[in-house]
Amino acid sequence: MQTDPHQDIRDAIRALCATFPPEYHRRIDEERGYPEAFVQALTEAGWMAALIPEDYGGSGLGLTEASVIMEEINRSGGNSGACHGQMYNMTTLVRHGSEEQRRRYLPKIAAGELRLQSMGVTEPTTGTDTTRIKTTAVKKGDRYVINGQKVWISRVQHSDLMILLARTTPLAEVAKKSEGLSIFLVDIREAMGAGMTVRPIPNMVNHETNELFFDNLEIPAENLIGEEGQGFKYILTGLNAERTLIAAECIGDGYWFTDKVSAYVRERQVFGRPIGQNQGVQFPIAESYIEVEAASLMRFEACRLYDAGAPCGAQANMAKYLAAKASWEAANACLQFHGGFGFACEYDVERKFRETRLYQVAPISTNLILSYVAEHVLGLPRSF
Amino acid sequence: MQTDPHQDIRDAIRALCATFPPEYHRRIDEERGYPEAFVQALTEAGWMAALIPEDYGGSGLGLTEASVIMEEINRSGGNSGACHGQMYNMTTLVRHGSEEQRRRYLPKIAAGELRLQSMGVTEPTTGTDTTRIKTTAVKKGDRYVINGQKVWISRVQHSDLMILLARTTPLAEVAKKSEGLSIFLVDIREAMGAGMTVRPIPNMVNHETNELFFDNLEIPAENLIGEEGQGFKYILTGLNAERTLIAAECIGDGYWFTDKVSAYVRERQVFGRPIGQNQGVQFPIAESYIEVEAASLMRFEACRLYDAGAPCGAQANMAKYLAAKASWEAANACLQFHGGFGFACEYDVERKFRETRLYQVAPISTNLILSYVAEHVLGLPRSF
Amino acid sequence: MQTDPHQDIRDAIRALCATFPPEYHRRIDEERGYPEAFVQALTEAGWMAALIPEDYGGSGLGLTEASVIMEEINRSGGNSGACHGQMYNMTTLVRHGSEEQRRRYLPKIAAGELRLQSMGVTEPTTGTDTTRIKTTAVKKGDRYVINGQKVWISRVQHSDLMILLARTTPLAEVAKKSEGLSIFLVDIREAMGAGMTVRPIPNMVNHETNELFFDNLEIPAENLIGEEGQGFKYILTGLNAERTLIAAECIGDGYWFTDKVSAYVRERQVFGRPIGQNQGVQFPIAESYIEVEAASLMRFEACRLYDAGAPCGAQANMAKYLAAKASWEAANACLQFHGGFGFACEYDVERKFRETRLYQVAPISTNLILSYVAEHVLGLPRSF
Amino acid sequence: MQTDPHQDIRDAIRALCATFPPEYHRRIDEERGYPEAFVQALTEAGWMAALIPEDYGGSGLGLTEASVIMEEINRSGGNSGACHGQMYNMTTLVRHGSEEQRRRYLPKIAAGELRLQSMGVTEPTTGTDTTRIKTTAVKKGDRYVINGQKVWISRVQHSDLMILLARTTPLAEVAKKSEGLSIFLVDIREAMGAGMTVRPIPNMVNHETNELFFDNLEIPAENLIGEEGQGFKYILTGLNAERTLIAAECIGDGYWFTDKVSAYVRERQVFGRPIGQNQGVQFPIAESYIEVEAASLMRFEACRLYDAGAPCGAQANMAKYLAAKASWEAANACLQFHGGFGFACEYDVERKFRETRLYQVAPISTNLILSYVAEHVLGLPRSF
Repeated sequence: MQTDPHQDIRDAIRALCATFPPEYHRRIDEERGYPEAFVQALTEAGWMAALIPEDYGGSGLGLTEASVIMEEINRSGGNSGACHGQMYNMTTLVRHGSEEQRRRYLPKIAAGELRLQSMGVTEPTTGTDTTRIKTTAVKKGDRYVINGQKVWISRVQHSDLMILLARTTPLAEVAKKSEGLSIFLVDIREAMGAGMTVRPIPNMVNHETNELFFDNLEIPAENLIGEEGQGFKYILTGLNAERTLIAAECIGDGYWFTDKVSAYVRERQVFGRPIGQNQGVQFPIAESYIEVEAASLMRFEACRLYDAGAPCGAQANMAKYLAAKASWEAANACLQFHGGFGFACEYDVERKFRETRLYQVAPISTNLILSYVAEHVLGLPRSF
Repeated sequence: MQTDPHQDIRDAIRALCATFPPEYHRRIDEERGYPEAFVQALTEAGWMAALIPEDYGGSGLGLTEASVIMEEINRSGGNSGACHGQMYNMTTLVRHGSEEQRRRYLPKIAAGELRLQSMGVTEPTTGTDTTRIKTTAVKKGDRYVINGQKVWISRVQHSDLMILLARTTPLAEVAKKSEGLSIFLVDIREAMGAGMTVRPIPNMVNHETNELFFDNLEIPAENLIGEEGQGFKYILTGLNAERTLIAAECIGDGYWFTDKVSAYVRERQVFGRPIGQNQGVQFPIAESYIEVEAASLMRFEACRLYDAGAPCGAQANMAKYLAAKASWEAANACLQFHGGFGFACEYDVERKFRETRLYQVAPISTNLILSYVAEHVLGLPRSF
Repeated sequence: MQTDPHQDIRDAIRALCATFPPEYHRRIDEERGYPEAFVQALTEAGWMAALIPEDYGGSGLGLTEASVIMEEINRSGGNSGACHGQMYNMTTLVRHGSEEQRRRYLPKIAAGELRLQSMGVTEPTTGTDTTRIKTTAVKKGDRYVINGQKVWISRVQHSDLMILLARTTPLAEVAKKSEGLSIFLVDIREAMGAGMTVRPIPNMVNHETNELFFDNLEIPAENLIGEEGQGFKYILTGLNAERTLIAAECIGDGYWFTDKVSAYVRERQVFGRPIGQNQGVQFPIAESYIEVEAASLMRFEACRLYDAGAPCGAQANMAKYLAAKASWEAANACLQFHGGFGFACEYDVERKFRETRLYQVAPISTNLILSYVAEHVLGLPRSF
Repeated sequence: MQTDPHQDIRDAIRALCATFPPEYHRRIDEERGYPEAFVQALTEAGWMAALIPEDYGGSGLGLTEASVIMEEINRSGGNSGACHGQMYNMTTLVRHGSEEQRRRYLPKIAAGELRLQSMGVTEPTTGTDTTRIKTTAVKKGDRYVINGQKVWISRVQHSDLMILLARTTPLAEVAKKSEGLSIFLVDIREAMGAGMTVRPIPNMVNHETNELFFDNLEIPAENLIGEEGQGFKYILTGLNAERTLIAAECIGDGYWFTDKVSAYVRERQVFGRPIGQNQGVQFPIAESYIEVEAASLMRFEACRLYDAGAPCGAQANMAKYLAAKASWEAANACLQFHGGFGFACEYDVERKFRETRLYQVAPISTNLILSYVAEHVLGLPRSF
């Protein structure tokens, strides 16, 4: 009854991750490098193809299982941020790509020959007001010509493909502002130097993220995904998956922090007794643990609905909210009760602390989730 | 997929509760009365016998369904505190009572002829340190003679039966302090005036709770439940059920508050627009709503385990923690955004606000839950 | 250096308050009565005339001293809510009343022959959007005729005089919406039955507050305070005083709660030791104590500026915010760690708990203070 | 009345700091370097000698002024962590050093020829349980021989002198565990290679901190400060100064964060309006601003008492608690509302965010302050 139905997946991921000890992730962080070997191992073991249907060489698992994979990676001390893009980008390609596109790309992605790790949506002047993006794609014969600018586009330097959102019909000419946007598959290797410039953004986390500049980048018209003008709708499809998977990563982080700090405060002796005996120490740990557990249940509820094809926007957003909050509280408890040692790089706490903080703002901020729930669940007026 | 499997129960309880409008509960509160008609209606409809096996005239439902019943009572604006005792006391009698006791009492309770609403455990000097209680039961022939004092014993004036915990073997003579305690069924009507004195405790909530004084109260030896000396273990059985049901009541409260305040802030206009348009108003409501939803999932998880006979201590305690926290935050948001009107009795908000506050301390305090999780789930040292 | 410059005032108020033990205030609360004897004693001792200049029979103290008086009343277990209106209403009369009005009323108020405890500003449909009030005062010869409705008007049944805000020039005819409003002194005894109807609002606190209905109430034109049309500005004068005094009352409450609960947890033994030894108990108490101390410093800063005639809006609002937050946190800690006993009326905790909650919404809500600081101190755009 | 009595100091520091733009501090952080030029400029301008009496070449200012200096450094975007050690270490040398020691060192420190930036107290196995340190100093002729280990000893690589705490009489031979400890001035340049080994600890912040290992390090007996065996008492002297100064730095950080984020959200447009118009954005900023202001008042109260020679332990601890909490909340608001940009190094937010987090654990953790207040102010039992 209490048996975890996902124990097999958990065991397999844990075994794989155990071969990449903390030193590995710490060194990658110090060097601001990319965990190439780690991602490669996950790919070879088939985990990065979890959401690719079996017909295309993947394992055809559901979002539920994918969430467990991401959770366990983060729980092991790693950071799914290096590879989670492929998970939720896949949804878009699988659901909205043509059969030809699926046949062309999915098996190679499943085999690890290609990576689809990037999604180019956000722009510096529009923030989360996506329909106002200024990047344009103008059709010229059998090509689309791309001009504009993107920001916070992750993993571009370690991906082969990117899904790009651009406006194909000017805002002034569409009935609804959500129309006239289209998505394209961009071959990153080809695009670099042929009109796309990549400027990395050094940041608090070892998260490879970039500004992209498009200056007459030409891409084949056949790289359009789905119908022209319907891109915004297609992008939305992937958002619930993305939020739910990020929730799972936060849950993994949350368990990592509570495990790590529990072990530490059981051992650490000050004033002649383990500091974990103090309620001022153990209560914040217990509180964040409870919140992680609650977030985990909401995550599974979102997955259940998603995998059944039912609406899951509320649950995906709530899971993201609860999980990011819980992991951040767990992170603070873990850092705090390690005292100075928490700040020392060799304890790995400060690295995970920086990493998990990101999920208060990405891929959607806490405030926007609260606005979503207020407006769409509680029926309150839109606040902005 | 999203269909609520308990929709029938919810609909039935809601229909019944709708016949007891806010004015009913408000008047009872003002008079510090007991909702006799309301409890009677619930009893006649069979809801108070939910946990009594069908063989004994009950409906043989599980804790899951019982929790939905309690939730819906509170969500309707009522207060299960008037009648929830019978739900979790029942567990103890059903599981540990003899076949004769079950035959004698359960059908009458199911029929509404008897009420088993009281549990006499807590004592003024021992608080939650239950094994140190000082009330004694000394066997004299076919009677036990009870002496001692209890506090916070609820619904005594509106119940026929009480389960009483007393020490039958002195602390000094038992190997473990949890041994030597026994439980008894006390006939309240007979006991009053025959050795048991009831002193009501006026309090912030219209919750009938009392001090009890026992001065040579004699009860028939056959009223011993289970084995002499094993009472502490039997009491523990009911605690997870109690905590889970109280969690459900808090969840019902939480929905009542978020529904109530959402409706209010959608309508209330200040500075030319509904106040619900302000993020400072809608965010705390949304936050507490999300927490209620998360608590509800944990409640169902605890129920699932309980009904399957699996260990559920962690889940029951976490459900109680999450639910009491969520309902209190919802209560504060509801009171706050009603402005002065929240304090006016006629809006019912202040009544529910007082009622739900109790569940931060009863039946177990927040601190003791955190201690439980720290010690029994996270393996930290006991802090007291 | 650490000597409290207000120790004399504190000692005197404490001595007076000590003659009104907890039972007195508890009984008044149970009866929903008015602490007539208590207010009378304060008046006779001259404290209610603290802000009346010496020339008019008062003691001519500053807001600093007045704040200490209110603080000590609440710290003693009483509730300044029964009499604080006179303190901040006085500002308005002293500063804006004519010499004739001052001569006529102030000495009698100082002597305790008259009470000026009520201020009639708020209306049910306008909330805090004061310039939109609908109550009108139309001049007819040597009278003004008042029509309209007010809500949350406190102490009307225990006051002789009320300062009333009404519109004397229709909104459509003024250049700025803050113009065309005037304030009047209303003789409550005369007004009752002569056009003013008082409907008490039963509420969570024993706070006498009312709805007022004006149906052609006529008042002498000479009761206009200051210039016609300038009333809004005059009302604003008193707001900083009011907020600072309410802050002082919350600070008094805060000390009452932290004193009360500290004493309790030092004595209360569970599991063989005082519960105050648990960090889960002592930390929330210490946190709220620190916040009370910080709020107290901000209160003195607001008073210092006010008494020097300097702008003090930011400080008065911040003092109110900090103090109300601190007292509410102290209240929750006090209630929580008394366990069930906190809910029992005889411990006085639940009464003070209900009373101090009011100051999260009155006289200005937390959200409006945050808006004020955001807009007027930090230069952010107005949010509503 | 509202004129800031410290405006001159503020203006001077701001002018100096303005010559070190954000790029300077950012580059130092990226390189994990030491802001040599910045500290040199502060020294040459005399600010680092603020607490040195005029007789010894310093400016003889009080803790109040010193706190304003540190506040303004942090408010300018710098980090006092590079140089604050000299401020609070000075107290110890000035108060407890011999006249000869003062004559020998203070003028050179005032002139910038020597730096006294390090204090060697903490050890890895004892944490804050200082009297149990294991480092020993054994007198041999005119030398003391030092053996043991220290951790979190800051600025050692950029200081000439360190005050070192070591046990001179074994714990077993002293009546009270706080006796038998002594402090020494260590010439860092001489000690390196002559028995003292320095191992830097890479950490989340660009804060130069180290492990020190002592293997028969010999220091002249004349370097003993004060009386042998009284060192613990001398160390305590400096703690209130240290806590108050750190509080001031947090206050400076708090203003930096609220200024920075206010400017950003006034300009940043999303959904067609500045994001600062959203209450979900402006309220957390306003809340943290209010808390910074309150902390600042408590800081000045602690300084006032300290400079008057009055007990100030409670105030120094409370100031540290309030300030560290406020700056951390301001940091989170600042990071959060910059969205992704907050994480980008070029905005400086992430650097200050990491820096201010340290003050939740150093130089004293939040929990130990709460324990202090609970025990020494509220009279509750010691919890550990």
